Amino acid sequence: MQQGRPQILVTNDDGIYAEGLSALRDALNEVGDVTVVAPERPRSASGHAITLHKPLRMENVRMPWGGDGYACSGTPSDCVVLGIFSLMSHCDLVVSGINLGPNLGEDLTYSGTVSAAMEGAICGKPAIAVSLADYENADYSTTSRFIARLARQVLANGLPKDVLLNVNVPNLPEAEIQGVAITRQGKRRYEGRVEKRIDPRGRPYFWLGGEIIEDIAGEGSDGEAIRQGRISITPLHLDLTQHSYAEELRGWNLG
Amino acid sequence: MQQGRPQILVTNDDGIYAEGLSALRDALNEVGDVTVVAPERPRSASGHAITLHKPLRMENVRMPWGGDGYACSGTPSDCVVLGIFSLMSHCDLVVSGINLGPNLGEDLTYSGTVSAAMEGAICGKPAIAVSLADYENADYSTTSRFIARLARQVLANGLPKDVLLNVNVPNLPEAEIQGVAITRQGKRRYEGRVEKRIDPRGRPYFWLGGEIIEDIAGEGSDGEAIRQGRISITPLHLDLTQHSYAEELRGWNLG
Repeated sequence: MQQGRPQILVTNDDGIYAEGLSALRDALNEVGDVTVVAPERPRSASGHAITLHKPLRMENVRMPWGGDGYACSGTPSDCVVLGIFSLMSHCDLVVSGINLGPNLGEDLTYSGTVSAAMEGAICGKPAIAVSLADYENADYSTTSRFIARLARQVLANGLPKDVLLNVNVPNLPEAEIQGVAITRQGKRRYEGRVEKRIDPRGRPYFWLGGEIIEDIAGEGSDGEAIRQGRISITPLHLDLTQHSYAEELRGWNLG
Repeated sequence: MQQGRPQILVTNDDGIYAEGLSALRDALNEVGDVTVVAPERPRSASGHAITLHKPLRMENVRMPWGGDGYACSGTPSDCVVLGIFSLMSHCDLVVSGINLGPNLGEDLTYSGTVSAAMEGAICGKPAIAVSLADYENADYSTTSRFIARLARQVLANGLPKDVLLNVNVPNLPEAEIQGVAITRQGKRRYEGRVEKRIDPRGRPYFWLGGEIIEDIAGEGSDGEAIRQGRISITPLHLDLTQHSYAEELRGWNLG
């Protein structure tokens, strides 16, 4: 540890062996000292799960795409708690990613990547979730350069308590990026969300999923920015209250 | 199925064999036709996880506390998707609970109970999460009566798109309840979040948890209502955007 260098915790939900995790580590090594704690296996769509009812393991491993880190038996949020409270003497910033695939619209609450950043915010740290908004021909170089720049800004400016940043970057060479947009969380619609099949023993089983049929990415949304080739930064908070509906509810007859 | 009766999907995160699930089913049987789909084992703190990478099973079982339902190998959110898209011809309302223990403040995003109701809202259904705000000497009777009344109101009034209700009920006899409060999501603080132990083979393992040291249940919060012996209803939405911080971010040098 170099005196005065920012201490940065890096995690993800694609697991310790993901290329995007090493890319993020390498990018942030330019900014500070990086500690990596990530799930020992992919934990996509794990939501904001934490592990309260069984013990967790952590093991220092070599990462195949470069560097070393702690492989943890738990969820992305578990990794954040263990990193901050068990491994690091102090932590200035939590960054989760680089996720392979977008985290946009209502998918945010499913996302282990975003939930890890939420956990960072709950632990009182500035936190960023970062995703490469494509599943194929992934090139992490544009995202890597941008996240290093953004991390420096967050370390310099801070973030308000309980605010985190959700970043999505188009899978484009840096020269083709159409700028940076500060966005709001958009919406997505799916169809055909369950597929029923019969196993070789005649018993049913079910696949969830469904294709996105409509990316209701209205003006100013995260999805719109990505479609326009822009980097999307959405400030998120932890307060889910729909304040505007409270008055209406007070008029109900609830005895 | 009786013609014209509301069709209600019931789930939880404590699992198909939980007493609170049967209590909820019994209460809502007065209001409509209830279909129960719940995790085959407890899935507390599972967050808004969904299962995309392995198939799911569902099996009709007798519930030990009364009634029958589908035990599902997945998360609470999986149960909601399977119930709505695979089992029910239509669904008018999703209710998740009765959770054993409170779902207040920042614990909301960890909660499988609340996440199941979020999934209901994402599927376009009015949705309620309901919790008994105590772990010991649980008596579901007050909560049962209240949730039946509230379900009738939701069916009569509807809820705005993408809004769900998070309900916490004090563990008190109905006569001692101090009324109903429409609240906002409060805050909680924990300490000692990781405990490191050594196993009989000399290797470390870790328990997450920590005690609540401070329930920062300010005026109008969910936690304050419970402390005052009132039923708390918090309207929640799915938009996590911190709109007020967007302008500040636009001033950053993100070049």
